[in-house]
Amino acid sequence: MGAIVPLVLCGGAGTRLWPASRESAPKQFINFLGERSTFQETIQRISTPDIFAPPVIVTAARYRHMVAEQLAALDLSATILLEPEGRDSGPAVAAGSHFIAGHDPHAVVMMLAADHVVEDVASFRAAAQKAAASAQNGHIVTFGVRPDHPATGYGYIRPDGAGETPDIRAVAAFVEKPDAAAAEEYVAAGYFWNSGNLVFRADQLLAEYARFDPETVAATAEAVAGARSDCGFLRLEETSFARTTAASIEIAVLEKTIHTRVLPVSMGWRDIGSWDALWSLTEKDAAGNAARGEALFVEAKDNYVLGDNLVAIVGLSGLAVVQTRDATLVIDRSRAEAIRPLIAMLKESGRPQIEEPAYVYRPWGSYQAIDRGERFQVKRIEVKPGGRLSLQRHFHRAEHWIVVRGTALVTIGETERLLYENESTFIPIGAVHRLENPGKIPLELIEVQSGTYLAEDDVIRLDDDYDRLRDDWERRAYAAEPVRDSSNGDAGGKPQSATSRPQPRRHS
Amino acid sequence: MGAIVPLVLCGGAGTRLWPASRESAPKQFINFLGERSTFQETIQRISTPDIFAPPVIVTAARYRHMVAEQLAALDLSATILLEPEGRDSGPAVAAGSHFIAGHDPHAVVMMLAADHVVEDVASFRAAAQKAAASAQNGHIVTFGVRPDHPATGYGYIRPDGAGETPDIRAVAAFVEKPDAAAAEEYVAAGYFWNSGNLVFRADQLLAEYARFDPETVAATAEAVAGARSDCGFLRLEETSFARTTAASIEIAVLEKTIHTRVLPVSMGWRDIGSWDALWSLTEKDAAGNAARGEALFVEAKDNYVLGDNLVAIVGLSGLAVVQTRDATLVIDRSRAEAIRPLIAMLKESGRPQIEEPAYVYRPWGSYQAIDRGERFQVKRIEVKPGGRLSLQRHFHRAEHWIVVRGTALVTIGETERLLYENESTFIPIGAVHRLENPGKIPLELIEVQSGTYLAEDDVIRLDDDYDRLRDDWERRAYAAEPVRDSSNGDAGGKPQSATSRPQPRRHS
Repeated sequence: MGAIVPLVLCGGAGTRLWPASRESAPKQFINFLGERSTFQETIQRISTPDIFAPPVIVTAARYRHMVAEQLAALDLSATILLEPEGRDSGPAVAAGSHFIAGHDPHAVVMMLAADHVVEDVASFRAAAQKAAASAQNGHIVTFGVRPDHPATGYGYIRPDGAGETPDIRAVAAFVEKPDAAAAEEYVAAGYFWNSGNLVFRADQLLAEYARFDPETVAATAEAVAGARSDCGFLRLEETSFARTTAASIEIAVLEKTIHTRVLPVSMGWRDIGSWDALWSLTEKDAAGNAARGEALFVEAKDNYVLGDNLVAIVGLSGLAVVQTRDATLVIDRSRAEAIRPLIAMLKESGRPQIEEPAYVYRPWGSYQAIDRGERFQVKRIEVKPGGRLSLQRHFHRAEHWIVVRGTALVTIGETERLLYENESTFIPIGAVHRLENPGKIPLELIEVQSGTYLAEDDVIRLDDDYDRLRDDWERRAYAAEPVRDSSNGDAGGKPQSATSRPQPRRHS
Repeated sequence: MGAIVPLVLCGGAGTRLWPASRESAPKQFINFLGERSTFQETIQRISTPDIFAPPVIVTAARYRHMVAEQLAALDLSATILLEPEGRDSGPAVAAGSHFIAGHDPHAVVMMLAADHVVEDVASFRAAAQKAAASAQNGHIVTFGVRPDHPATGYGYIRPDGAGETPDIRAVAAFVEKPDAAAAEEYVAAGYFWNSGNLVFRADQLLAEYARFDPETVAATAEAVAGARSDCGFLRLEETSFARTTAASIEIAVLEKTIHTRVLPVSMGWRDIGSWDALWSLTEKDAAGNAARGEALFVEAKDNYVLGDNLVAIVGLSGLAVVQTRDATLVIDRSRAEAIRPLIAMLKESGRPQIEEPAYVYRPWGSYQAIDRGERFQVKRIEVKPGGRLSLQRHFHRAEHWIVVRGTALVTIGETERLLYENESTFIPIGAVHRLENPGKIPLELIEVQSGTYLAEDDVIRLDDDYDRLRDDWERRAYAAEPVRDSSNGDAGGKPQSATSRPQPRRHS
């Protein structure tokens, strides 16, 4: 048997952990629990060449630099497929399976989410191998986690009484997240938590998928065949992918095929989808309080704190308090689902806190906004050694750069100069400029922008190491595309670019 | 009868409303409820020349610029006495009374706290006049507020059955803050809230004070006689004032003299000493949630939010959430007293959040820290039209200034130049420099400091419009003063300046 090919899905934009998790930087890429993100932990977990082949990762185009960055930090590489848009897990699994089957139709694939914690890695790997053996025989094997408490935050799997082996069993049903009473019943009745890990043969999964949704399987085949290599990423072909039907792999295949099996596992598995889960996974003081960041507790029990700055809780228990640069959430830890109406309110009001993260990652490094006034904003920018921003200009703002750490190579117009710690420079409105870190340590600088219009779409890129000019081109083409007014069928209506204006982009 | 002379005490450093109220910017100077601080509202309330004379204000030296600034914003003036140190309200009242008696021994004085809310100003003024008439007859009249609920956050006054008039009554006892059951009893028994307003004849108060503590009365007389005029402030003489006994005016006089009376009042009085009080005074939504700043509530009732940034509360009720730039407090609104152990923890750990406010007020304007790294910090500085910082130099840091609004007149060494919006300059380490706003609109600039040592005591002032060189001199003299080791009586012990090192000072 060949090595198992991991298929890691990490394109989801989770808002359940808002305000820490944002649409532009979702939870799988955040290091809630240690030095590394759960995406990184997931990759690490399958980095044993004797069991696993190099992974195939499916993510959204917007997260590609974050994925590449976090892989590079582990000194690992992977094939990275970019979805043109999110269509739930079904089409992502189909596309990944086509890609893998293109190399070996009989390859055994292990689909993994990137936002799970597995404490017992040895058990995980042993289970993967056991599942792989079953998958070779044509089963689609899901990991059923033996519950250690009646959780209401997970879906359950009801096993069928008649399993073929003492371990691997048929699945009677996938069951939605229960209320507390139902969860008690499920645990008593021997249900498993649905961990979302899935092991299958690529050809078998595609064959079963095609029985229930041939169009999606054909469309993803075309999307993979037409995929375009782009700076180390593989972009799935857009028009084909747009023809897929959005559905989870559970609904698209697992609940329908007779080949689904469940492998009971005990491997210290948790989904980090709620503050409750993070609280349970974080070290606590004697009163049960857990904190990432500085926190003080007075007559307070069983709280979870995540903060950039000091957070103090007095006389309260069972809360999660999450404080970020631009938003603070105070929530009853046990009421994770109540975040949904809040997210809806945030979206409806168009508040930036739903989308914009505290830190913005770019291929060259990262930046954070630290202050903003009517006609200015201040950013702290970090450029990695060797990192270089695009050659660019702005029509509405001037910029001041002050180097506070490291050395910058600054191009303004035709001149290039080195800027050392504690030196500054000025980029006039309209000037073509570029910033680079030629050194061996990170470059840190304070940027003060001033002008009447400071949104990130006033960045005209002229050259870019990271091939983002095409993004710009697509963005502008999209902006200029005429929008038909369907109410009167007037195809000759004039372009309404205001309605399809691109989202302001962040720092280039 | 002459006009009543208001004596406003505002030297207290309240931490009950931390983190909004800080030792360097306490609650009486913060606009919790509207455009103006309660100090300003208090001054406004007594600005009717037909009833009140111009006020005498007693405050701590450190708050003098804040007091002057807030008076100037109202276009009002006052005599401002500066206490060399806090000794509770007794010595402050004695000093103020001496000062007033120096002009007119029979003057009727009304002592007022600066952190109270009075909604019915007409009733307040009528009560003041009624109390003044009684004070002329030798009574020391305190305002007893008729309770509208059994508050546990206030002290109570038990009136004596036998009052001389139907209104003004003798006082049987001052009663400490009760628990809920006792509060019910007190209200049923006709006790009043002790509002802390006090009306008396200056000579009478001093005569009664002297009966119980002649030393403090003599010491405050000397402190006033030796007071030194300083840039529009009157600094009480230090060595005399140091001889006073710290005590509240209730304990020093009111509980001991037979002349104390209570005047029942109904004037919409509240002390803003707790989040509960602020919640009750702030406009609420249908679910009873009150917010200063941006807030969102989901399944949340009766909460109070005060925030610089967005605060969201989900599934919780009865909280106060107070979010500032460097600290966030989440507290059960009804547990105001539980803040005390927290404050003790903060002090013990030497955290800056107990002392440093988000905004630092200076005679020339204000500044706020917006970012800080290992070897740099960033501030946003606002200089009032005509404001000028001291001529100064730093030995350990260089500064970059970027003007984002208005015009700056910058002196560096021998050269002076105007810096316009979007221009920047650099002040090298050691360079003598000065910043001034010569314009008609506020000057706003971003300052980036960089260097190995960035504390505010690396400011060597060479000239100052606001006469703060003496502060520096005192500070340095104090730092160099030998500290005797009292344990062995060795007066010749070497200077231990480290133990008496001055607090780092903020921006000059």
